[in-house]
Amino acid sequence: MVNEEEMNGSGNLMDFLDEPLPDVGTYEDFHTIDWLREKSRDTDRHRKITSKSKESLFEFIKGLLDAWSGWVVMLLIGLLAGTLAGVIDLAVDWMTDLKEGICLSAFWYSHEQCCWRSSETPFEDRYKCPQWQKWSELMVGQPEGASAYILNYFLYILWALTFAFLAVSLVRVFAPYACGSGIPEIKTILSGFIIRGYLGKWTLLIKTVTLVLVVSSGLSLGKEGPLVHVACCCGNLFCSLFSKYSKNEGKRREVLSAAAAAGVSVAFGAPIGGVLFSLEEVSYYFPLKTLWRSFFAALVAAFTLRSINPFGNSRLVLFYVEYHTPWYMAELFPFILLGVFGGLWGTLFIRCNIAWCRRRKTTRLGKYPVLEVIAVTAITAIIAYPNPYTRRSTSELISELFNDCGALESSQLCDYINDPNMTRTVDDIPDRPAGPGVYTAMWQLALALIFKIIITIFTFGMKIPSGLFIPSMAVGAIAGRMVGIGVEQLAYHNHDWIIFSSWCRPGADCVTPGLYAMVGAAACLGGVTRMTVSLVVIMFELTGGLEYIVPLMAAAVTSKWVADAFGKEGIYEAHIHLNGYPFLDVKDEFTHRTLATDVMRPRRGEPPLSVLTQDSMTVEDIETLIKETDYNGFPVVVSKDSERLIGFAQRRELILAIKNARKRQDGVVSNSILYFTEDQPELPTNSPHPLKLRRILNLSPFTVTDHTPMETVVDIFRKLGLRQCLVTRSGRLLGIITKKDVLRHMAQMANQDPESIMFN
Amino acid sequence: MVNEEEMNGSGNLMDFLDEPLPDVGTYEDFHTIDWLREKSRDTDRHRKITSKSKESLFEFIKGLLDAWSGWVVMLLIGLLAGTLAGVIDLAVDWMTDLKEGICLSAFWYSHEQCCWRSSETPFEDRYKCPQWQKWSELMVGQPEGASAYILNYFLYILWALTFAFLAVSLVRVFAPYACGSGIPEIKTILSGFIIRGYLGKWTLLIKTVTLVLVVSSGLSLGKEGPLVHVACCCGNLFCSLFSKYSKNEGKRREVLSAAAAAGVSVAFGAPIGGVLFSLEEVSYYFPLKTLWRSFFAALVAAFTLRSINPFGNSRLVLFYVEYHTPWYMAELFPFILLGVFGGLWGTLFIRCNIAWCRRRKTTRLGKYPVLEVIAVTAITAIIAYPNPYTRRSTSELISELFNDCGALESSQLCDYINDPNMTRTVDDIPDRPAGPGVYTAMWQLALALIFKIIITIFTFGMKIPSGLFIPSMAVGAIAGRMVGIGVEQLAYHNHDWIIFSSWCRPGADCVTPGLYAMVGAAACLGGVTRMTVSLVVIMFELTGGLEYIVPLMAAAVTSKWVADAFGKEGIYEAHIHLNGYPFLDVKDEFTHRTLATDVMRPRRGEPPLSVLTQDSMTVEDIETLIKETDYNGFPVVVSKDSERLIGFAQRRELILAIKNARKRQDGVVSNSILYFTEDQPELPTNSPHPLKLRRILNLSPFTVTDHTPMETVVDIFRKLGLRQCLVTRSGRLLGIITKKDVLRHMAQMANQDPESIMFN
Repeated sequence: MVNEEEMNGSGNLMDFLDEPLPDVGTYEDFHTIDWLREKSRDTDRHRKITSKSKESLFEFIKGLLDAWSGWVVMLLIGLLAGTLAGVIDLAVDWMTDLKEGICLSAFWYSHEQCCWRSSETPFEDRYKCPQWQKWSELMVGQPEGASAYILNYFLYILWALTFAFLAVSLVRVFAPYACGSGIPEIKTILSGFIIRGYLGKWTLLIKTVTLVLVVSSGLSLGKEGPLVHVACCCGNLFCSLFSKYSKNEGKRREVLSAAAAAGVSVAFGAPIGGVLFSLEEVSYYFPLKTLWRSFFAALVAAFTLRSINPFGNSRLVLFYVEYHTPWYMAELFPFILLGVFGGLWGTLFIRCNIAWCRRRKTTRLGKYPVLEVIAVTAITAIIAYPNPYTRRSTSELISELFNDCGALESSQLCDYINDPNMTRTVDDIPDRPAGPGVYTAMWQLALALIFKIIITIFTFGMKIPSGLFIPSMAVGAIAGRMVGIGVEQLAYHNHDWIIFSSWCRPGADCVTPGLYAMVGAAACLGGVTRMTVSLVVIMFELTGGLEYIVPLMAAAVTSKWVADAFGKEGIYEAHIHLNGYPFLDVKDEFTHRTLATDVMRPRRGEPPLSVLTQDSMTVEDIETLIKETDYNGFPVVVSKDSERLIGFAQRRELILAIKNARKRQDGVVSNSILYFTEDQPELPTNSPHPLKLRRILNLSPFTVTDHTPMETVVDIFRKLGLRQCLVTRSGRLLGIITKKDVLRHMAQMANQDPESIMFN
Repeated sequence: MVNEEEMNGSGNLMDFLDEPLPDVGTYEDFHTIDWLREKSRDTDRHRKITSKSKESLFEFIKGLLDAWSGWVVMLLIGLLAGTLAGVIDLAVDWMTDLKEGICLSAFWYSHEQCCWRSSETPFEDRYKCPQWQKWSELMVGQPEGASAYILNYFLYILWALTFAFLAVSLVRVFAPYACGSGIPEIKTILSGFIIRGYLGKWTLLIKTVTLVLVVSSGLSLGKEGPLVHVACCCGNLFCSLFSKYSKNEGKRREVLSAAAAAGVSVAFGAPIGGVLFSLEEVSYYFPLKTLWRSFFAALVAAFTLRSINPFGNSRLVLFYVEYHTPWYMAELFPFILLGVFGGLWGTLFIRCNIAWCRRRKTTRLGKYPVLEVIAVTAITAIIAYPNPYTRRSTSELISELFNDCGALESSQLCDYINDPNMTRTVDDIPDRPAGPGVYTAMWQLALALIFKIIITIFTFGMKIPSGLFIPSMAVGAIAGRMVGIGVEQLAYHNHDWIIFSSWCRPGADCVTPGLYAMVGAAACLGGVTRMTVSLVVIMFELTGGLEYIVPLMAAAVTSKWVADAFGKEGIYEAHIHLNGYPFLDVKDEFTHRTLATDVMRPRRGEPPLSVLTQDSMTVEDIETLIKETDYNGFPVVVSKDSERLIGFAQRRELILAIKNARKRQDGVVSNSILYFTEDQPELPTNSPHPLKLRRILNLSPFTVTDHTPMETVVDIFRKLGLRQCLVTRSGRLLGIITKKDVLRHMAQMANQDPESIMFN
């Protein structure tokens, strides 16, 4: 980078440091940003534009454009995230079907598209048409039979392995950051951490492609979490178009929060739920301006997706449901039971998954990621194919489980014995006894449930993109549907029991098993992620009616309470801790009685803090200090004796300033005095030219006294987004507390007293 | 209050101050709370309960109950707020109809109930039945005719005046705080201000009763804002049941935030919108825990209201609408025009209303509140009666304007000329030419619009409960419906114009005027209140479909931008400023380049700060200082010469400590030395017994350096909720900044540079 000063010649050498230093303000990888500083840098920029805009019309328009750039970025994010989600949906549809067969009329059609386009077949036969051929039909000419079954089975596994191998190889070679759901990392990034490349172009590209591959391979994972990551990559991409966002890490995070909202919005077709998810679950700093912009981005994304119309039904939502009967108070009991199940499943899943991931990290297992993916895919495919409920894609399964059995429904789950005398209306079908199909479905579902529970634990955390929403919802939906069918049959056969007689007369449609599936899905998702409001709102947007909000809420609350009783951490927080990211959770409350003096460094017995003095250290002294330590910055005191705090100097800025001075300022040598005061200190006559560095001195470092309770310190770190804080007593510097010290202390205290959790 | 120490006798006198002082922690009226302190007090309480709960089962259960009390309070608030809203709705219905007539079969039935219960009349005739008699019918036996009209007119005015007089008298005599909408004050209270009695039982009772009276009197006001106030009163009432909330002003505000959400939830039947309204518009400190609880309270309130079923249609929402046609891109142009109208109306309303309110405050006008209400009511009633669109209640008017003209609709607004050859289906009616009824309606609506615009300016701010949502929405809905009918007729008569030909074929149902009314209502509400996300979500919950969210959002965004261009303040902020409440808005950004040293007191030339020294002042010195100043507290320094800061002592605690010491500690006299150090200072041999007050010294006062930019200081005040902050340089005390200093400075800077608004 060429400094303007360099081109103009030396000029007034002493003043050139008053120019902004090149490169100041960027952070190093895996470092924490200083929110207060980013904010004040943005205000400076803003002030400059405002004052310039009065000078000419051109500057005025430039100012207006700058003010509007936020909305432009939101629009672009919405458009790209919606488009990518649509493309992913279409590609997944096609590739999932490719595992079973191919469309002869046009190989790029999925099964449904193939038959739908071939002729105007009735809705029930939308999966039957001559153009669509299974592999066995195409290769050996046999659509049915044992050998055809084995051939199809084999090709199903082969395709699954191919997709999975491609995916894991792409991730390993091109973008290692594309693996996982991405939400833990995005939470950490949004809280002010720098992970270079995590939201880069390569990650975007590879994550999008591999997401299609892994979802199509039939692994027990979903695309919802990774879609949030993809949307955030889009956000980061568009940030680089505007210096307002690309040069300010704080402003950039506002855009990323909105992008996360857009991601959930397209994942579920739930814009309001997306905004609340970003607010409740992902974001750290969420000013009201961001709320409004997030909403805009989420809406644009949802409408873009709808105009692509990947589900072919012009519905926005992933699982559209419509129930015909209300729920009754007595049903709250099974709903709450489902909530308990969801909480238990959440706890079980988090514990087992974390244990397995820790094992992967610490043992030789972690050295063979490709082999691991291949093995899990093979097991999944081998076990999944024979069971119709695991063979199909998980979202189709959830969709079927959520559905109410209308009169036209041909699914096995709706195989009830009809009363021949009954006049069938389309919607209002009374409860009926279960037929053989339902009983078959019940044990197949039971097997699917066990399989899903076990395989998901091993799948989440492999080196491929993998979301948790869909598998969690699938577990809950299966359990819920089974409970629902159970209650329905119990009520049908025992109308006279007291608990049923008050609300379920014979011949009435009392129980909707689909609703139970939905409640179960909400409970399991809540148990794993500990979402609350956003979960209920997403579910509310799926059903589109306030009618079922009470069952959903009862299940979500129960599930959260049950899960919280076993441990406060959701899966994302657990992964953040597992990976050791410096994340200061807004939700944890710190309630211990420690003081700043207990946490600050230097501890008792440790060497004293590395400090600079305001006017008595030489350039060499400081260079040695910089070489020997790796602190981000150094407090500046009056003198080593008095230790009165003057300010704080950033390491980066110090290095740059000294480098520049040595290069260009005459007379600045190793034993030049370096001073931070306003006036040049008195020096012996023959001493070399001193170096003034007041410009880089932060005169308002954040301080607390040593008696400040740690709960206040934690609050300050959280709310102001500090990097470090100096501890003083009556102006004398005693020590320093960094964000990592705070996190370490919080972890220590939490381990000492795990019981206090119950009362939060 | 009897101190335990007092009962036990003197004991170790020197130690008794280690016990918490009686009465410490309560704030005085019109003072600001210290959020950090409230929070740490709650943590202390919480710690005590946690440690006690390990001692016995009883304490354990007590601890659990304490942890659950938050949910209990929410449940109670939801139930009471829902019930009150239901009762208000029923009472308003009855009393509004009482102005025109009475039900002979049972006088407590409203018009609709009277006819609905009398016989199974068809829906269209629900307002026609013999049991319901107009006053003229009852008194002179004439239902129609000139004299009957005059008699009815006269009685209408008389009832309106009676209701209004009753309302204003009740407010004046029993609860002056019950007037207005209450939202500006609640915003201020939630930001940490104390207004005693504002949320008291009397206010609750009187506001509920007078709200019914003023709404029934036909004044141009709504019940939505006051319902938020009523719900907050409920919240405050239930806080007093639990010491956790009643004794902690910070925790109390969490409950009040949730109560505000419940208030909006019942006002519109929009629980999610209510929570977002509380988050976006009302609340100051809104942790995630509160979000979840608010949602619970809002849901309980909504369901309580629904089980009361005041609208008789088992709908939750105030205005339920169902449209049969989608909207087209070309319609965005009139929608954006409506947004511009909404923004202009918002600006006009705020400016005129504030000017009028200022006039009321400063001139003799303010001395006759009863007369003012009577006059405005008389004018309203006289002008409103002849016009059918202003005679009925405003919510009925809005409801009619929002409605789509179905085939069964008998309203004047749906008087279109039908094609006799057309086969009429119920829902899908093509655009038709307007009949004479529509033309009559158009000019009546135009008159109603002008009347509403003018009268609302004078109504809002009188000494009666008055909400703004409904009148604003009415203005928007009238304008919107008129534009909608205009566009519809334009499209019908000019199918061949380019702008219509692409989407509006002859015989199709292209334009839904009801949708325009809804968009207009959203635009006007947005212009007045500057709500964004919550506004769109409330409207979304009213319509229950994502379909119309884009028109609503386009209008809301345009309206906010247009209105913001003329001034950043919404009506609530404007009233907060008018009343001079110390409200530090989270939304304003402070972008000026001033430093803490420019704002702190003492200014140049002012006498030095009143400080205490740590060990050299006598009791008398301090008593004199307390008498001569009215500061909330005093910084404590080492000595007057060195001015090194040690801590901060609260005025209240000082007074109490000295009073207690004088009463009970032997030897503490006026010239006793008062010291804050750990060890007793060395004193001359014959000096009186000194008084140790280290216990009341806050050893961790919040400090910033004099070089700290004010934008950081403002941020700290906002985010940490400070009362004051000390300014130091290298530990030497330079001055103090209080919340009021910050507010004053912000106001000064905003006045200096009003242009900077445009770029925010």
